[in-house]
Amino acid sequence: MQEETMTLAESFVLLLSERRFQELRRTAVEENPADIAEALGELTPEACRIIYRFLPKELAAEVFVEMTHEGRKALVHSFSDFELREVLDELYDDDTADLIEEMPASVVKRILKNTSPETRRSVNQLLKYSEDSAGSIMTTEFVHLRREMTVSDALAIIRRDAINKETVYTCYVTDKQRRLLGIVTAKDLLISPLDATMESIMESNVIAANTTDNREEVARMFDKYDFLALPVVDKENRLVGIITVDDAIDVLSEEVEEDFAKIAAITPNETPYLKTSVLSIWRARIPWLLLLMLSATFTGMIISAFEGALAQVVVLAAFIPMLMGTGGNSGSQASVTVIRGLSLGEVQFSDFLRVVFKELRVSVLCGIALAAVTFGKIWLVDYLLLDQPITMPIAFVISITLAVTVIVAKLIGSILPLLAKKLGFDPAVMASPFITTLVDALSLLVYFGIAQAVLHL
Amino acid sequence: MQEETMTLAESFVLLLSERRFQELRRTAVEENPADIAEALGELTPEACRIIYRFLPKELAAEVFVEMTHEGRKALVHSFSDFELREVLDELYDDDTADLIEEMPASVVKRILKNTSPETRRSVNQLLKYSEDSAGSIMTTEFVHLRREMTVSDALAIIRRDAINKETVYTCYVTDKQRRLLGIVTAKDLLISPLDATMESIMESNVIAANTTDNREEVARMFDKYDFLALPVVDKENRLVGIITVDDAIDVLSEEVEEDFAKIAAITPNETPYLKTSVLSIWRARIPWLLLLMLSATFTGMIISAFEGALAQVVVLAAFIPMLMGTGGNSGSQASVTVIRGLSLGEVQFSDFLRVVFKELRVSVLCGIALAAVTFGKIWLVDYLLLDQPITMPIAFVISITLAVTVIVAKLIGSILPLLAKKLGFDPAVMASPFITTLVDALSLLVYFGIAQAVLHL
Repeated sequence: MQEETMTLAESFVLLLSERRFQELRRTAVEENPADIAEALGELTPEACRIIYRFLPKELAAEVFVEMTHEGRKALVHSFSDFELREVLDELYDDDTADLIEEMPASVVKRILKNTSPETRRSVNQLLKYSEDSAGSIMTTEFVHLRREMTVSDALAIIRRDAINKETVYTCYVTDKQRRLLGIVTAKDLLISPLDATMESIMESNVIAANTTDNREEVARMFDKYDFLALPVVDKENRLVGIITVDDAIDVLSEEVEEDFAKIAAITPNETPYLKTSVLSIWRARIPWLLLLMLSATFTGMIISAFEGALAQVVVLAAFIPMLMGTGGNSGSQASVTVIRGLSLGEVQFSDFLRVVFKELRVSVLCGIALAAVTFGKIWLVDYLLLDQPITMPIAFVISITLAVTVIVAKLIGSILPLLAKKLGFDPAVMASPFITTLVDALSLLVYFGIAQAVLHL
Repeated sequence: MQEETMTLAESFVLLLSERRFQELRRTAVEENPADIAEALGELTPEACRIIYRFLPKELAAEVFVEMTHEGRKALVHSFSDFELREVLDELYDDDTADLIEEMPASVVKRILKNTSPETRRSVNQLLKYSEDSAGSIMTTEFVHLRREMTVSDALAIIRRDAINKETVYTCYVTDKQRRLLGIVTAKDLLISPLDATMESIMESNVIAANTTDNREEVARMFDKYDFLALPVVDKENRLVGIITVDDAIDVLSEEVEEDFAKIAAITPNETPYLKTSVLSIWRARIPWLLLLMLSATFTGMIISAFEGALAQVVVLAAFIPMLMGTGGNSGSQASVTVIRGLSLGEVQFSDFLRVVFKELRVSVLCGIALAAVTFGKIWLVDYLLLDQPITMPIAFVISITLAVTVIVAKLIGSILPLLAKKLGFDPAVMASPFITTLVDALSLLVYFGIAQAVLHL
């Protein structure tokens, strides 16, 4: 194998097996921490541990943050107290808080023992915020200025503290009570005269989040306003932390993947698919399949109840899959649209009537179009071409049922997510599979009801 | 209504109707451009136009960029050439290129007429990149340094040019042929001695995108590496532009919404749901419903073909919805998982065998569990409790069919998106509805096949 075409993981293994440690270190230093973390994830725990020890201190911490939960857990277990302290010294407080949340109790004790009292205080504070809140994704390490400071004061502070701050591109001006007065960007500092005061150059109309705000809604603000960082204040408007754009992107990605999982009726899971064990995948999927399967029993019971009608006109059975399928698809079109609208904040519960009226009109149009096509298709294909035992009344029953099913499906598909939101549930769990099950049952009731009435069964 | 509790749009209308123009301008200046754009979107085109004219020049351009396509189109139509030129002067080149792409030809002519020759050249260059490429989302306005410059030279350049650059936080060092040598962050400039050269402080291991790279894959790099900006080079490694994190977030959001739409069998559309007309929503949904409905005809034909068997053992019909539903759900669990894995770059076509083997094991576990539960449920509920005409052989046929259906569904659900990716289609269109239709037909064939064999129909 040529060294040039090797993956980073393969290079690591080669350099390690040939004991070319200097070169290993040099290779690592030239790579991005995220790439090193990915490569380490592909190695055996043993090799991962050895290579990790060759990384320079600061890079080691950066790689550590980028690793998967499992990789981090294995590494922390193998660390001596001294090594653990070295890594923890380099981590930002919010990363330390995340680490503590994912480790078992015994490891948490070791972590807290090896952090400075100051870090411990700030980490404990961060751990108090609920997992869904803006507080849980903020960092407490930011550049803090006073209104009377000049640009050169500010530049001196940045020069001194930059290394310990997650960003220096947005600085925060507060009063003595730590109340947020304004923000100053590094760009402002670079283009303003050195003797200008913070008060004269700061932007005082600041958009800030509250520690208890929903973290997804806060992350969406980065999309809307193109922020690089957002200040977080407590109830007394005191500045307690900031959220940086990279953490906001992580939240957005995580929430999106959760929504995809829920729409496909899977329990969300953060581990990449190929690294998840077969049993874990099974556990994430089987409860939902069981639940949906058992709820499909109702549709079975409905069919059983109308067995007599079905035995008289067996051809009716042939259209059950088409009716249920179209109903399910119509419902999930509406539900996914409304679920995304709610997630993006484009739709609120207060838009209930507007949404329902809109879906009603769309569904009537869809219902009429589909019913007309079905009637034509039954006439031309099933009756004339295939010579099936279908009469006009039967074609009529099927078309009308289809139209009604589509309308009912779209209304249910739009109403359920709105109600879930109102009741405080995640609208995404009201997505396609559940709506399909409900629509299946209703469409069968409509089908047999209309069939009995029209065909006098 | 109290002025404090009014929305921004309502304040605008009030101030406009009372002709308090000074105050209107003052209100606007204190708001964020994205909020102003949103408020203008809620007003009549007439009111929007008038208020827009009160905005200071620079703010006006920022608001313009944040408006919807429709809002922008209406405004441009109402502009005089002078007003158009004023806005265009303030826009970044990439925004001008976006504007040109969305406007009708007559307006494009006016826009090109009113831009400087320099802008026109750079815009024309940007327009050459295909819509899916990294080139299409980059800006050509960035801070450009040479290796021999000192920190104080660089700071002077930033001070002079900052106002026209989309970001000053990452600066790019190139040689005379404009080949990218390294990057220098504003943080580096702020903490390094004033006489240090760019060469001595720059990071030369730079991750760059190519103009022709897929824009979604490039945007994902911001998630992975926590970049604020990414350089874009052409085939000769010459620096031609940069992508900033806000544009990357926009791409990620857009692609995610497209995937959601495709999974729900809707033609993607960028307009927010409540602002989309009923007819547009109908047009985005009806083709897919028709297609899926007509393809469900096959399942109907299969049932018709086995009408004889069904007439003999009518109870078999009662389990069709449960079998098809569970098959559909199993298939979409697999397909959505694989589709997201492909989108996130966690899964490649080269993982084909690993994915199929994994899904095979998961589906066997799921199939066995569901079959066992179904057998037990039929025995306990349908046979003992409800006294249905179900024999052990029938329960056996249903359970075996269920297991086979789940396995087939998961294999199809994982294979189809991988094949779509390999053939250059978007895997997301292979999502649930299509897989459901295919699985429906296959599960019925399995059902009646096993039923005929076991029950000797």
